[in-house]
Amino acid sequence: MPELRKDPTHGRWVIIATERARRPGNFIRDENGVIDENKPCPFCEKNEKKTPPEIYAIRKQQSLPNTPGWKTRVIPNQTPLLRIEGNLNRHGYGMYDVLRGVGAHEIIIESPKHIGNTADLPIEQISLGIKTIRTRIHDLGQDFRFKYVLAYKNYGTAAGEGKIHHCHYQLLATPVNPLRIKEELNNAKRYYDYHERCLFCDIIQQEMSDGKRIVTQNEHFIALIPFAARFPFETWILPKKHQCDFVNAPPDNDEALADILKHVLLKLKVGLDNPSYNYVFHSAPFRREKAGEARWQTIQEDYHWHIEVMPRLTRVAGFEKGTGFYICVIPPEAAAEFLRKVEV
Amino acid sequence: MPELRKDPTHGRWVIIATERARRPGNFIRDENGVIDENKPCPFCEKNEKKTPPEIYAIRKQQSLPNTPGWKTRVIPNQTPLLRIEGNLNRHGYGMYDVLRGVGAHEIIIESPKHIGNTADLPIEQISLGIKTIRTRIHDLGQDFRFKYVLAYKNYGTAAGEGKIHHCHYQLLATPVNPLRIKEELNNAKRYYDYHERCLFCDIIQQEMSDGKRIVTQNEHFIALIPFAARFPFETWILPKKHQCDFVNAPPDNDEALADILKHVLLKLKVGLDNPSYNYVFHSAPFRREKAGEARWQTIQEDYHWHIEVMPRLTRVAGFEKGTGFYICVIPPEAAAEFLRKVEV
Repeated sequence: MPELRKDPTHGRWVIIATERARRPGNFIRDENGVIDENKPCPFCEKNEKKTPPEIYAIRKQQSLPNTPGWKTRVIPNQTPLLRIEGNLNRHGYGMYDVLRGVGAHEIIIESPKHIGNTADLPIEQISLGIKTIRTRIHDLGQDFRFKYVLAYKNYGTAAGEGKIHHCHYQLLATPVNPLRIKEELNNAKRYYDYHERCLFCDIIQQEMSDGKRIVTQNEHFIALIPFAARFPFETWILPKKHQCDFVNAPPDNDEALADILKHVLLKLKVGLDNPSYNYVFHSAPFRREKAGEARWQTIQEDYHWHIEVMPRLTRVAGFEKGTGFYICVIPPEAAAEFLRKVEV
Repeated sequence: MPELRKDPTHGRWVIIATERARRPGNFIRDENGVIDENKPCPFCEKNEKKTPPEIYAIRKQQSLPNTPGWKTRVIPNQTPLLRIEGNLNRHGYGMYDVLRGVGAHEIIIESPKHIGNTADLPIEQISLGIKTIRTRIHDLGQDFRFKYVLAYKNYGTAAGEGKIHHCHYQLLATPVNPLRIKEELNNAKRYYDYHERCLFCDIIQQEMSDGKRIVTQNEHFIALIPFAARFPFETWILPKKHQCDFVNAPPDNDEALADILKHVLLKLKVGLDNPSYNYVFHSAPFRREKAGEARWQTIQEDYHWHIEVMPRLTRVAGFEKGTGFYICVIPPEAAAEFLRKVEV
């Protein structure tokens, strides 16, 4: 059973993996990315039997589970970081805090066809992937042991994609809120308490009037390079209108989200020679009520969901890992100008 | 002139580099680590003219600056991330916060001989490197524009070493405290306020009595895998007795520090086939007095300097970058046991 341990110096939880634990000798070289293209891909249509049974799928009427006919398909991760069974069993170990590694770890296969980069999927297909994420997060939210669901994608070797080069998302339901998400919520709340305005709405407004860091936009979404980008070409995609969490965002806008996401990913692919990338959905946690308070009425105002896209172009150097202090070697304005000009 | 920009969603400062700014087209492949071993190394003895003039050196009596005869040598970084001239000019840009990129960026050459890995230096030489770091941090601390000096080492391509494969440290004096250091100080202070004991002293005590996560120790220092290690074989080196900051640590112990550092680095080299690694000194900032309060008397008690060594064995995957949530694929106890058994 994996374990969650809290680092007392930073308050951050670390998953101590056991399912995918490696022996010390196996660390010598990173085996990531050795893709054998001759091996049949378990994520392709007709290979449904090569994966664990599906949890959910968007599929043609009358097609049966675990058979062809699906458009998106959700399966459990075969080497999950966290396990679904059991209770959290919060306990101390001397001065340290420990939880059992309870959670869920799912894979959303985005397309029945063997396509590696989401940039190359049709917009309708990307939109179905987004709907599937929403459905699964909503469903996992019914489990009161879970506080948060991380929805993310690793594309390419440098982004830790692993051995299957077929478009997919990963969902990780966690019993604690990730530290960076907490930080973001706290900062947004502080900003809201002072200004009585949403931090992200203000960012969007300033960026719209400035224009210099906008990559692209459509009716409902804006893609921009943040003013203090950590990584070259880091791009955030935000709904233009205030929306606290992704699960409750209007599903009518999914097509517009798929459109801007494809646009951004294509610009990265064409302009930067098909780089590896990660993107992560940042949304409000499931349950933000404080003990005894019905915070649900007001709590929609101080956070704004978004997607953070991080191309993997430079290595994070030593002191950045140790200190949280980043260097960005291209001014955000120059990065945005470059991406605006990439024609796709 | 580089700029420091604050990310309003996390409160973290990012250096927007201009000196080493790259054009968008230059991001396509990471050029790190293409080392031309035929080119004369500018960090070797007798090549002193190939570097900018030295700022400081430990050298034989009567040998002249910028000539042979030195044991360690400090030079300015030729493409500094921050620049020494001018004032901070704190200002707003709409809703954002900006500082001029004022600071210092120095290189400490650890050895006149062309040796790449600190693990291979004699203990006396490592000890002189440590003394040099202390001297330089102390000196930079006289400049009231600086709040913190990051002292760190990148060894090997995967750690972002760059093109010169000759033992060296980098020092970066910054006008703001790095976010992770602030977090650590805050957590340590909270712990101290509650327990009236140093967080790190308690960690050392529990680890000494547990024993399972200790890698090695000597009279003055302990090396251990932290209970919630973020990375496989992450190792912290701490002084056993309470010491708030590295600059004021007893210089008599430098030999013992060099001894344990060499020991740890050799174990990594031998046990894990010469991996890339980073290590970062974590120490208290220069000036921690709060406005109007003479905090200097008590402030020694709530922090404990240490070194964090991070071998680069696995990639940091997507959601770890976005969320601060880490997965460690080997239990700290197994990693420590493995390193204990590596004979060096």
